[in-house]
Amino acid sequence: MSADRLCSASKEVKPESVSLCPLGAAAAPEQELLCIFGTGDFGRSLGQRLLQSGYRVVYGSRRPHSCGPLPQGAQVMSHTAAAAQSASLVFVCIHREHYDFLETLAPELKGKVLVDVSNNLKKNLYPEANAEYLQRLIPGAHVVKAFNTLSAWALQNGPSDASRQVYLCGNSAEAKEAVSEVATKLGLTVLDRGSLTAARELEDFPLQLFPEWRLPLRLAASLAAAFFFYLLIRDVVYAYAEEGKDISFRIMVSLANKVFPIVSLIMLALCYLPGVIAAFLQLYRGTKYKRFPDWLDRWMLCRKQLGLLALAFASLHVLYTLIIPIRYYVRFKIAESTISKIKENKTSVFDTTLAWRADSYYSMGILGYALYVLLGITSLPSVSNALSWREFSFIQSKLGYLTLFFCTLHTYLYGGSRFLSPSTYKWYTPPGYILSLVVPSVVLVLKLLIILPCVDRTLTRIRRGWERTDPEDDTKKSLLT
Amino acid sequence: MSADRLCSASKEVKPESVSLCPLGAAAAPEQELLCIFGTGDFGRSLGQRLLQSGYRVVYGSRRPHSCGPLPQGAQVMSHTAAAAQSASLVFVCIHREHYDFLETLAPELKGKVLVDVSNNLKKNLYPEANAEYLQRLIPGAHVVKAFNTLSAWALQNGPSDASRQVYLCGNSAEAKEAVSEVATKLGLTVLDRGSLTAARELEDFPLQLFPEWRLPLRLAASLAAAFFFYLLIRDVVYAYAEEGKDISFRIMVSLANKVFPIVSLIMLALCYLPGVIAAFLQLYRGTKYKRFPDWLDRWMLCRKQLGLLALAFASLHVLYTLIIPIRYYVRFKIAESTISKIKENKTSVFDTTLAWRADSYYSMGILGYALYVLLGITSLPSVSNALSWREFSFIQSKLGYLTLFFCTLHTYLYGGSRFLSPSTYKWYTPPGYILSLVVPSVVLVLKLLIILPCVDRTLTRIRRGWERTDPEDDTKKSLLT
Amino acid sequence: MSADRLCSASKEVKPESVSLCPLGAAAAPEQELLCIFGTGDFGRSLGQRLLQSGYRVVYGSRRPHSCGPLPQGAQVMSHTAAAAQSASLVFVCIHREHYDFLETLAPELKGKVLVDVSNNLKKNLYPEANAEYLQRLIPGAHVVKAFNTLSAWALQNGPSDASRQVYLCGNSAEAKEAVSEVATKLGLTVLDRGSLTAARELEDFPLQLFPEWRLPLRLAASLAAAFFFYLLIRDVVYAYAEEGKDISFRIMVSLANKVFPIVSLIMLALCYLPGVIAAFLQLYRGTKYKRFPDWLDRWMLCRKQLGLLALAFASLHVLYTLIIPIRYYVRFKIAESTISKIKENKTSVFDTTLAWRADSYYSMGILGYALYVLLGITSLPSVSNALSWREFSFIQSKLGYLTLFFCTLHTYLYGGSRFLSPSTYKWYTPPGYILSLVVPSVVLVLKLLIILPCVDRTLTRIRRGWERTDPEDDTKKSLLT
Repeated sequence: MSADRLCSASKEVKPESVSLCPLGAAAAPEQELLCIFGTGDFGRSLGQRLLQSGYRVVYGSRRPHSCGPLPQGAQVMSHTAAAAQSASLVFVCIHREHYDFLETLAPELKGKVLVDVSNNLKKNLYPEANAEYLQRLIPGAHVVKAFNTLSAWALQNGPSDASRQVYLCGNSAEAKEAVSEVATKLGLTVLDRGSLTAARELEDFPLQLFPEWRLPLRLAASLAAAFFFYLLIRDVVYAYAEEGKDISFRIMVSLANKVFPIVSLIMLALCYLPGVIAAFLQLYRGTKYKRFPDWLDRWMLCRKQLGLLALAFASLHVLYTLIIPIRYYVRFKIAESTISKIKENKTSVFDTTLAWRADSYYSMGILGYALYVLLGITSLPSVSNALSWREFSFIQSKLGYLTLFFCTLHTYLYGGSRFLSPSTYKWYTPPGYILSLVVPSVVLVLKLLIILPCVDRTLTRIRRGWERTDPEDDTKKSLLT
Repeated sequence: MSADRLCSASKEVKPESVSLCPLGAAAAPEQELLCIFGTGDFGRSLGQRLLQSGYRVVYGSRRPHSCGPLPQGAQVMSHTAAAAQSASLVFVCIHREHYDFLETLAPELKGKVLVDVSNNLKKNLYPEANAEYLQRLIPGAHVVKAFNTLSAWALQNGPSDASRQVYLCGNSAEAKEAVSEVATKLGLTVLDRGSLTAARELEDFPLQLFPEWRLPLRLAASLAAAFFFYLLIRDVVYAYAEEGKDISFRIMVSLANKVFPIVSLIMLALCYLPGVIAAFLQLYRGTKYKRFPDWLDRWMLCRKQLGLLALAFASLHVLYTLIIPIRYYVRFKIAESTISKIKENKTSVFDTTLAWRADSYYSMGILGYALYVLLGITSLPSVSNALSWREFSFIQSKLGYLTLFFCTLHTYLYGGSRFLSPSTYKWYTPPGYILSLVVPSVVLVLKLLIILPCVDRTLTRIRRGWERTDPEDDTKKSLLT
Repeated sequence: MSADRLCSASKEVKPESVSLCPLGAAAAPEQELLCIFGTGDFGRSLGQRLLQSGYRVVYGSRRPHSCGPLPQGAQVMSHTAAAAQSASLVFVCIHREHYDFLETLAPELKGKVLVDVSNNLKKNLYPEANAEYLQRLIPGAHVVKAFNTLSAWALQNGPSDASRQVYLCGNSAEAKEAVSEVATKLGLTVLDRGSLTAARELEDFPLQLFPEWRLPLRLAASLAAAFFFYLLIRDVVYAYAEEGKDISFRIMVSLANKVFPIVSLIMLALCYLPGVIAAFLQLYRGTKYKRFPDWLDRWMLCRKQLGLLALAFASLHVLYTLIIPIRYYVRFKIAESTISKIKENKTSVFDTTLAWRADSYYSMGILGYALYVLLGITSLPSVSNALSWREFSFIQSKLGYLTLFFCTLHTYLYGGSRFLSPSTYKWYTPPGYILSLVVPSVVLVLKLLIILPCVDRTLTRIRRGWERTDPEDDTKKSLLT
């Protein structure tokens, strides 16, 4: 187990949890005795929880007093061999580096169930999984890998939802059954992952660092970098080269506030593009019984992450927009324009059309962002769990497309009539917001095609099992699918 | 089961989940054999989960290879009659449209437990529930409706909290007991809903579309529409009729930003009004042992939704307010006023009282909104679950009234001394914010009455079981209530 | 049980929940009969749930029809003695004040298991716990305290995650085992807290009011008050005393917007200071096997609350900052400065350095706040439960320090070159933001020291069990820890 995990656990343990143990008197003689090797945080928390669930617990440790108080009601034996012999199930809660000392206990551990709860600090630190190494050291024991995804803290404070699952693997079905029973009695749900060769996979679980976020994060970073340099050249470099002006200070706010909404809009559209592609693929194939290509499957699996990253960029865009009027540059420009108007004695006339366009632009942006936040809230695990399947699909699909529509309209209104003006195309390049409109517009048009009654009807039939290819055998084929 | 549900499930399944199955070797001979008809997403996920929990699984399917890989370790029989005969419990994971083919298997299915997991695409598609139809087709079998509220995705990735509950119903107590046992072994919690006549209700569960949000949403929409037209006439039409000015562009931001806070404040007050009415009803009746009128009960049940909608409107109000200084109209007006001041050589004096009032107005608004968001956060399922009863009641009641107080004060400060000015009352109508103050003011005054020590004491006694009507028999009566 | 709890429960019960009961016909004769005393909300909800889980239920009540409908399928006996005799397990769902009437049933209750589910309205209302009082009244019964942390509402709607745990205590191991069995069958997880002397502790659970928030809240309030008065003197009193100007209106927004970010930054730094201190303590001691001093332990335990309060203050700072341009005072000042520029015919030159500094300042603030919100979201129970240990530690530690760095940099940029100007130090006191920079700067410098490769290596070794003190006995000592 990782030292940091131990350490952080010990810091978060509530002080009163020490009194969680039952009276020794309550331990009837028929209760099963379990042995725990190691008195680190995990060993102590596990012992406490086992005692609370009615087991008797004996610790095997050479230094029982060196680290924190052990739970009341547990025995401690400094003679580890005796401790091992007293129970048929032994939890090994020590670091892999000290496993070699267990070799000396091989005779006493013969035929016992050894539960390996250890984790490593890094992936691929060792050539074989900890549990496999333990099995090699003590071939006579039945090693079961389990509990390594639980933290000491979760064990002590009662497991919450996500940490309620215990993965286990091992070569002996009986040993796994024995460990399952203990886990079930602790209020945990057991998932069997097969033989001990799966131990490596299980040991990698707690070391995972957002695997499903990697692709979307990389995409977001690439898009942001690409548009940053594109706009840097179009805005800052252009102004310096053509007009000799240094507007490099704009990088910090103005440029950032162009990159963020562009990336956000494109990524939001990329959330909905795979669904549209999948629908057209099903229409083209005339069946839902063919698997999608791998790239489409992978794309669909990261839609939630794409959407949340898009929301993050949209939120940055909102904050960067709201600070516009307190910026030094903006205040300077406004004062300058007022002063020049007075000096030149110009009178500007209020343009109602411009007011309509500007206010609509802001309104669409706010409504789009509000729906966006709603989508984000419903993707919180506790909220989405409370929704029925139809409610979740309504929000993520119907409201999702409405969000995309509002945000796209917001961007079109931003452009206004500037699309046609040649001065927009500095150095013959289109401004960033025009580029950002391509994907969302395509997605919206394709979606519009799909919800046409005739297309929608065919698609619904396909999704309910109907197939186009073989009309006469149709009903029979779709039986029992 | 709905095709869309199947489809969305298959898209979200993690690629590695295919390796979730235990070794075939681990399946000891004494493990129970279950049969699954249908190899769609739900059937496949169910089979995988059953295998993981130690059951043996046989699929009955005429097209086992047409859709996705089946879990390793499961048998597949294309001869469905043989599959049905091999197990005493059969999961029917096929669409209702194909149930008629099961009729041919009636002899083999006699005496078996048939678990109907199906859902429909819409409510009231068929005259009878799917499970009742199945029972009618195969009268010799014991049909149990169950698992239909679970998704294939939840089954595969381990059920989370909300999806941990399995509702079941059926006419045979033994059959229900058998299904309960399987569900419990899968880590699910069973809730028995009675006989098979409840099947329709169970089949409607996944088709629910925010039933508890309907009334609050309708109320919010009506209030918003009413105030929109009221303000449209008072502001835009008035300006056009009396002054000949076209200020229709104000609809997009200015008018919206009047409607949103008005609706928000009224709906927040409507959250707290039923509680106050209930308290006065209890005081008037002198007992808590009479049920509240139905309308009051229904009102109380949607307080959370009322509050969340009010928060949504308040958030829109905040966003619409914060973009004020970047609006074209506002910038134009400010520049114009500065220019006219210079031209007319007027000097305006700084008004400290006005500064106090304006800053207090903003401050109250921000503090009220901050508390509002806090209330919203604590109503997230995972947060409110972690609160003790007293903590939840403290936040929702004490902090709730404080929020209402801040927001009401914010609105009074907005009005300031304009309440008394006749020019406020265009066409003899009061401005919207005055109308929005009625309900909150009433609620706050009534609440103030209730927390007076003498009233509070009586109310507390009533809520603890004391009754006013029959003083001498008092203690006896409240025994065992 | 508290009257309010009952009351609020009855208000929130869904109307359709009454139909949750199974058919009477489904109740096979071998099902266990349980008795419930009291027909209040909790008693009714408990009965319903027990019936759903397959128990038979008999109510003992003298007034069965006075309060709400009882669940269908339950018997009701107005003769409480007969009801008590019929079952071996009796749930006492009545108020403590009416316990004395139970004394008359002492002969019938002898040898029975009595489950005390009651709560009090306040802490320390009575000299002894309700359950101990009940045991004293009926010494022949086996009293078990249980279920008091569940609400009637949770029982009826199926327990969610946090409310799934049942704490129980009692003097008889057999009685506790019997209650455990019932709880497990209801889908709850049991935690045994020992003998009946723990009843008081259990009865205090639902009365807890944010115990872990008290210290952080007190700290935040003290810091806010201290800086408020400090800045009041430095800004408002100074302006009045030295310049004779009344700028008291600034208290509402300007002053508040100085206090909030200062408190937020200091509290964010105080989140990370204990971790740094702990690391240096471990480095100094050369071992992780010595407990931290109590004050450090307590500090570490409230880091999450410190951080969330800091986030709340930061959010207020954001809102107060964003309304700056719509304030009357600000608009007046800007107009005044424009007018004076024209009158005095001054031309101000655009300062690119100032623009860089101002925009960087805003940018850092926004990025810091965005990360801050991300930290807040991941501390939501349902989100943090879904993270692996490594992911949680990555966010809370790596991203946490990045947040602190951004926010500190934001504050340094705010100061800019003003640090050196003597006019900053009115009455020889430093401005608030300079004071707020002390703790974060110290934390960042110490953290920088810790992540130096040489220090980091030693620390990692210590945290994995290595000890400096006794090098030759090193490996042996760290065995089995």
